[in-house]
Amino acid sequence: MNLPQGFRYAAVYAGLRKIKKDDLALIVSDTPAVAAAVFTQNRVAAAPVVLARKNLRASRGKACVILVNAGNANCATRTGDQVALTTVRAVAKALGVKPEYVLPASTGVIGVEMDGGKVVAALPGLAARLDAANFEAVAGAILTTDLIPKTAFAEITSGRKSARIAGMTKGSGMIQPNMATTLGFVVTDAVVSPAALRTALKRAIDRSYNRISVDGDTSTNDTVVVLANGASGVKASAKDFEASLTSVLESLARQIARDGEGARKLITIDVEGAANDKAAEKIARSIANSPLVKTAIAGSDPNWGRILCAAGYAGVAFDPRKADIDMQGMPVCRGGLDADFDEVELKRKLDQPDCSIRFAIRGGGKGRTRFWTCDFTEGYIRINASYRT
Amino acid sequence: MNLPQGFRYAAVYAGLRKIKKDDLALIVSDTPAVAAAVFTQNRVAAAPVVLARKNLRASRGKACVILVNAGNANCATRTGDQVALTTVRAVAKALGVKPEYVLPASTGVIGVEMDGGKVVAALPGLAARLDAANFEAVAGAILTTDLIPKTAFAEITSGRKSARIAGMTKGSGMIQPNMATTLGFVVTDAVVSPAALRTALKRAIDRSYNRISVDGDTSTNDTVVVLANGASGVKASAKDFEASLTSVLESLARQIARDGEGARKLITIDVEGAANDKAAEKIARSIANSPLVKTAIAGSDPNWGRILCAAGYAGVAFDPRKADIDMQGMPVCRGGLDADFDEVELKRKLDQPDCSIRFAIRGGGKGRTRFWTCDFTEGYIRINASYRT
Repeated sequence: MNLPQGFRYAAVYAGLRKIKKDDLALIVSDTPAVAAAVFTQNRVAAAPVVLARKNLRASRGKACVILVNAGNANCATRTGDQVALTTVRAVAKALGVKPEYVLPASTGVIGVEMDGGKVVAALPGLAARLDAANFEAVAGAILTTDLIPKTAFAEITSGRKSARIAGMTKGSGMIQPNMATTLGFVVTDAVVSPAALRTALKRAIDRSYNRISVDGDTSTNDTVVVLANGASGVKASAKDFEASLTSVLESLARQIARDGEGARKLITIDVEGAANDKAAEKIARSIANSPLVKTAIAGSDPNWGRILCAAGYAGVAFDPRKADIDMQGMPVCRGGLDADFDEVELKRKLDQPDCSIRFAIRGGGKGRTRFWTCDFTEGYIRINASYRT
Repeated sequence: MNLPQGFRYAAVYAGLRKIKKDDLALIVSDTPAVAAAVFTQNRVAAAPVVLARKNLRASRGKACVILVNAGNANCATRTGDQVALTTVRAVAKALGVKPEYVLPASTGVIGVEMDGGKVVAALPGLAARLDAANFEAVAGAILTTDLIPKTAFAEITSGRKSARIAGMTKGSGMIQPNMATTLGFVVTDAVVSPAALRTALKRAIDRSYNRISVDGDTSTNDTVVVLANGASGVKASAKDFEASLTSVLESLARQIARDGEGARKLITIDVEGAANDKAAEKIARSIANSPLVKTAIAGSDPNWGRILCAAGYAGVAFDPRKADIDMQGMPVCRGGLDADFDEVELKRKLDQPDCSIRFAIRGGGKGRTRFWTCDFTEGYIRINASYRT
């Protein structure tokens, strides 16, 4: 897959995390790019989130550089704001750009002072490595407990020319809809105005990152940034651009759900027949967040009563006698009652890495949604009982 | 502990669950008792919940009998309403009381037809066993995945006389605040008016069952019933009665949290300094429902950043720089920052079966709450991945 023109990437090990694995990275646009971002809605926002928001305002939606580290969230510490500012300034100086053109992002442990000196010391080596071929290296450097690099790509053709979109993400653990969710970085060489980029990102996020749930927690550091440098010269229609951006973000979001801590299965939840899309989303989220549903899927147990029950406490009015549920395309509940399905056959089907749940209200409204989550296994507990120590 | 006068109890194995363990029980007041109950707020309410609500309305808050079974929730089935009605009528006939004086309750698997014939067939044997000494036998019969019977007692003295309150409960798995939660049955020989009993129950529930959380799920069958038969002749003050009822329900609720599926630790969460009690409760519930906090406690990991983070997405405004967190009475976070605690010492303290978390907003309001939950271990996943099969 061809990458967007005019971007370079670099990753190194700066010593911010214990295991020796790249933990500091740069994404650089050769020219100032149009930038848009969504951030965590948590009341406790990490220092890099606060500074990135501020820089984006100061630059009126422009940026050249994303500075990202793993191993330390730079959150809830004495020196957090200072560390974020110092490292951003050092990057700006090293690359010869305005400080407000640098957007910082961090992921890792909360409440431990981050050593900004390590970042500054690693910068010359990092800058020397900047290369258009290092996209995958950065995708690997931002990972923490998720072990599989997650990338997605799209091409937008306009006449005989084409622009490209490339995205990378890290997830796992603290993921929940209704926010930016985790770290995601998208670059494109399409020509887009700041307003169009903001609108497209907001809509695409609503149909991707805001529709996944791993464990119901929302991080202090969630950040998704898109940089559009226009290097292709291709000005796609707003509709085409939004569609391509959505496909990239949706692919990244699905990859996050599949790679949830300890997860073995991606669960796709379709809700239909709700009064409106918001109501459908509430039901889908309630099913996706239910530990009882998620553990049942882990055990390939077609326990549809738990799905009905989770829908029932979603805070949405519906008549249970009109509820239909399918699992893996097999009817398991019709009109709120057992659909007399072949349990052995369905258990076998639920052993697949891809599981589907459909919840439909018969004769209901036009509200529908698609949502993704993962199963809940003993591996999740193992990882999280000793993450810090 | 002396039990309230004028109540008898019986339990038998009627064949409703696979393992041979009592699964059908009666709680009988010798005279019509004043009755109050709270039920699930799930949109999907089981047949016994619907009928118990109806009977309580028809009898204007009176009842003689609680009929309870484990092994089948009698929910989301074709014959559910009929089974509930038939078994209630059979009990009424066998004991010579009006049908509306019988309150049914069920717990177990959802979506599987319940064989009412087994209940009816077991009734003669069940009625023959009715005895004031069988309280503990019923407390055992109502259990499902929770293995420890949960009972609590209180005495209300008024002059030289005294009335008694005795309660039993089953919990585990589907437990969440904001509702009746699980099954709970309380009997008392105090003299109470219907209105006073309803008020006392509502207030006591708000400070007990509505302040625990095991896994964030809410069942279709949650029911708490109180029967007050007045047999002691003691008319306690409304305040004294409410205080005693609250102490019984709070003890039962704490026992449920401690015995959560796979749980090894009871976690008590105190929130102080919120704008009001509602806001404090939101923060406490967010911390209690966070799988990341609960797994950290399971691993004795003093990861206070996860507590701060969970408070941050509770939907309550506060300044993180004014947040103080204690674990096991040790300051771990002051003003949103690491309190420089002895990590080895605290890890040792967190190995106890009782863990405490205190979250306080410095210089905040008078809002406070106490909340209970349990840790999240691999055992929870094991139990729930194969509950049905």
